[in-house]
Amino acid sequence: MTATCLTSPLFTDLYQLTMMQGYYFNGLHRQEAVFDLYFRRLPFEGGYAVWAGLEPMLETLESLRFSEDDLAYLGTLRQFRPEFLAALRDWRFTGRIEAFAEGDIVFPHEPLLTVTGALWEAQLVETMLLNSLNFQTLVATKAARCVLAAKSSPHGGEVLEFGARRAQGPDGAVSAARAAFVGGATATSNVETGRLFDIPVSGTHAHAWVESFPDELSAFRAYARLYPDSTVLLLDTIDTLHSGLPNAITVARELRGQGHELRGVRLDSGDLAYLSRTARAELDAAGFPSVNIIASNDLSEAVIAGVIAEGGRIDVYGVGTQLATAGGPGGGALGGVYKLASLNGVPRMKLTGDPGKASLPGVKHVWRATADSGETSPLQWDVLTLGDPPQPGQRVSDPVNPLRSAPIPAGLHWHPARQTVMEGGKRTRPARTLKEIQAFSARQLARVPTETRRLLNPHIYRVSLAPDAASLRQRVMEDLQAQHTK
Amino acid sequence: MTATCLTSPLFTDLYQLTMMQGYYFNGLHRQEAVFDLYFRRLPFEGGYAVWAGLEPMLETLESLRFSEDDLAYLGTLRQFRPEFLAALRDWRFTGRIEAFAEGDIVFPHEPLLTVTGALWEAQLVETMLLNSLNFQTLVATKAARCVLAAKSSPHGGEVLEFGARRAQGPDGAVSAARAAFVGGATATSNVETGRLFDIPVSGTHAHAWVESFPDELSAFRAYARLYPDSTVLLLDTIDTLHSGLPNAITVARELRGQGHELRGVRLDSGDLAYLSRTARAELDAAGFPSVNIIASNDLSEAVIAGVIAEGGRIDVYGVGTQLATAGGPGGGALGGVYKLASLNGVPRMKLTGDPGKASLPGVKHVWRATADSGETSPLQWDVLTLGDPPQPGQRVSDPVNPLRSAPIPAGLHWHPARQTVMEGGKRTRPARTLKEIQAFSARQLARVPTETRRLLNPHIYRVSLAPDAASLRQRVMEDLQAQHTK
Repeated sequence: MTATCLTSPLFTDLYQLTMMQGYYFNGLHRQEAVFDLYFRRLPFEGGYAVWAGLEPMLETLESLRFSEDDLAYLGTLRQFRPEFLAALRDWRFTGRIEAFAEGDIVFPHEPLLTVTGALWEAQLVETMLLNSLNFQTLVATKAARCVLAAKSSPHGGEVLEFGARRAQGPDGAVSAARAAFVGGATATSNVETGRLFDIPVSGTHAHAWVESFPDELSAFRAYARLYPDSTVLLLDTIDTLHSGLPNAITVARELRGQGHELRGVRLDSGDLAYLSRTARAELDAAGFPSVNIIASNDLSEAVIAGVIAEGGRIDVYGVGTQLATAGGPGGGALGGVYKLASLNGVPRMKLTGDPGKASLPGVKHVWRATADSGETSPLQWDVLTLGDPPQPGQRVSDPVNPLRSAPIPAGLHWHPARQTVMEGGKRTRPARTLKEIQAFSARQLARVPTETRRLLNPHIYRVSLAPDAASLRQRVMEDLQAQHTK
Repeated sequence: MTATCLTSPLFTDLYQLTMMQGYYFNGLHRQEAVFDLYFRRLPFEGGYAVWAGLEPMLETLESLRFSEDDLAYLGTLRQFRPEFLAALRDWRFTGRIEAFAEGDIVFPHEPLLTVTGALWEAQLVETMLLNSLNFQTLVATKAARCVLAAKSSPHGGEVLEFGARRAQGPDGAVSAARAAFVGGATATSNVETGRLFDIPVSGTHAHAWVESFPDELSAFRAYARLYPDSTVLLLDTIDTLHSGLPNAITVARELRGQGHELRGVRLDSGDLAYLSRTARAELDAAGFPSVNIIASNDLSEAVIAGVIAEGGRIDVYGVGTQLATAGGPGGGALGGVYKLASLNGVPRMKLTGDPGKASLPGVKHVWRATADSGETSPLQWDVLTLGDPPQPGQRVSDPVNPLRSAPIPAGLHWHPARQTVMEGGKRTRPARTLKEIQAFSARQLARVPTETRRLLNPHIYRVSLAPDAASLRQRVMEDLQAQHTK
């Protein structure tokens, strides 16, 4: 790839720019717009999502400018007038943003991020917001699922991100590795990601290493000589149990004779449950109970859970393709959207023929209930209101089907689920490090009820509309429907 | 996102660098290595793949250098010795590359690209080669499938790439849009991609545009006033047939009164077959047979084919998520691999416990047969040999199952399927433009037998091993198996 585009305002859909020009020449561009970013369906048929990508996005928004090159290119498209291009020269993102903290656990239909700003600012950034936040949230969620599966073993287990070679483009790989770390992966194989985000990088060796030596044992010895304290040997170039494993045990003995310990062995093909049990037994019998067993080869949360269910003894799961591309059922893409909720104080709504795709009008607050005020208290309920927190006894309803409703019980502790993270185009707080975000995310995930964290058929966490938000939707919908039957 | 990494040698897996250091200190780094890049299974359960991503990759390889910052970062990892880091300062990619021309049609098990060079050069670039070529080939193939589906309508049809907001990261979006163009998409909505690769950008307007005006008709009129020759109106903000369509026809009449023509209307929800038939009929009846109907909303090749089968009258398909993330059955990632085939002239092979994952040893040539020597002659057969083209009467075999074999008939025209595209680390020919690549790809796809281009259950195109390549594999496999039973 040649030059990149990650922080250019041209990383947007053309229609954002043609609409901006339209707003500009119709004198509408300075109207105060409120846009909500949300998704309608959880990925992976799961029960939760891990919100990721916010901190780098805020950094991008702070520095977003049209360069002279950008403006010159737009000029060549023959759709933009000089007066508008001149106005873009001074364009800045000066809006306010409310959002869930990066790493928090989020659910469908709640505004994860709300942009309040001049219409032409809020419109332009739609594409980049959706691109980064959709993808990173998707991968962080996949990572959390893999990490929870790995930790479910009685012997524990951790997840490394290995997917650069199958990721969707170079930056797809880097963004994915960052998001995987948010979701709990402990390291990445991708060196550039390690540098960019200050997270651990790790690796073993490839089959080509073994093939570059006269035989497997010489290859193993050469690697161990150079990396006596961090060697992980790949066992399956010739035959995992009959060649790789015995040669690895030989090298482990030689290393110990020199005062070092073999770090691990890696399984990359075959039946991982069987091979890992056998390798564990033979390593233990040879006196190497602390040599880790690392597995790779098309892993996913389902494969990890399956291997554990069959008594597999894997310590570290290197998850590649499925993590970097967030594949599997319900994966591949998160369908987050960005919808106008209010303009100059007037609630706005997209109706369309499909009620499931209708948006929620008005400026909404997201309230989250916990059982008590403790920092580890389980999450109970999220409710969208137009202002104050929900009151005990109020009947709140499902965001897409008003027939499903329930009263708010007494005794819940309600707090705002989101904070103002940007004001006047500037961040309101210093950026958190990726390690801080990871730790926060793990704490929040631990507060999600077990049955909602389940891999398959999870319990659906409650997200509801308070009566004020539901009534507003009803009113705006009726007004719109009246408009076309006039 | 912050800085990027697209052309840094640190965009690699850590193990490539630890192996490089190992080769270096074992005096193995200058050995002549031959690596093949190939995939084992076609994406989307289809019959072919469109090879994409080569030209930008060659550009990256030509300029690949370790900067002082790169070396300083590697120093912090405490795994690399100063002597090795000093050697990296002068590291260059100086290898030779044979490859299919970008845009060509390719099949499983054939080396799409072969790197011949010093072991430590060929090893480092594995991750970036796989990352770019896997992803772009995947998306170009998806695009070709969508384009073929669209063109199958008796009324024709074209495909636009719309997927930036759901793509896997910003560069995922840009790479995807580039690859979609290789596969036959006629434009992208992504402005940055248009600039980077000089391809057309296009767009309509969003629901927010309509919601920013007092009513739909004023919104449509304002857009048409500004873009009298390129307006496409989105019909479904309120009600497609009862509000959007009549308002669009009103604006089409007004535009015509001013000497302009409405470009199109866009459908973004509901039953696209029914809505497009109705919209076409009403537009025609109102005297606007040349107003295009554009459709979006989770399209894929299967949806496109389904809409056409039901008599849908869509002229332009805006394909977003499914194209930018190459989703759907058999999609999401292409499992291309990069395997050592020869070292210092000695054939090398990865065996493993799984015969389907064994690699093909030796330096192979890819020969492609056509019925005659004409430029449009249909593709007949691809055969891998160790040298000369296959001879009539020779029995060639399936790459993974020697039990499946067939004789080569007389009368086929054989030519080398690949060219030398890089020599001594420099491109051997000037880069082709993306438009040239797209045109070449369309010509090659037209040469693929119809039954192989089918969306579902395609006929499998023949890729075979000549007797010399098959015998070599047998011999190397037996040698390796003997090694661990010694």
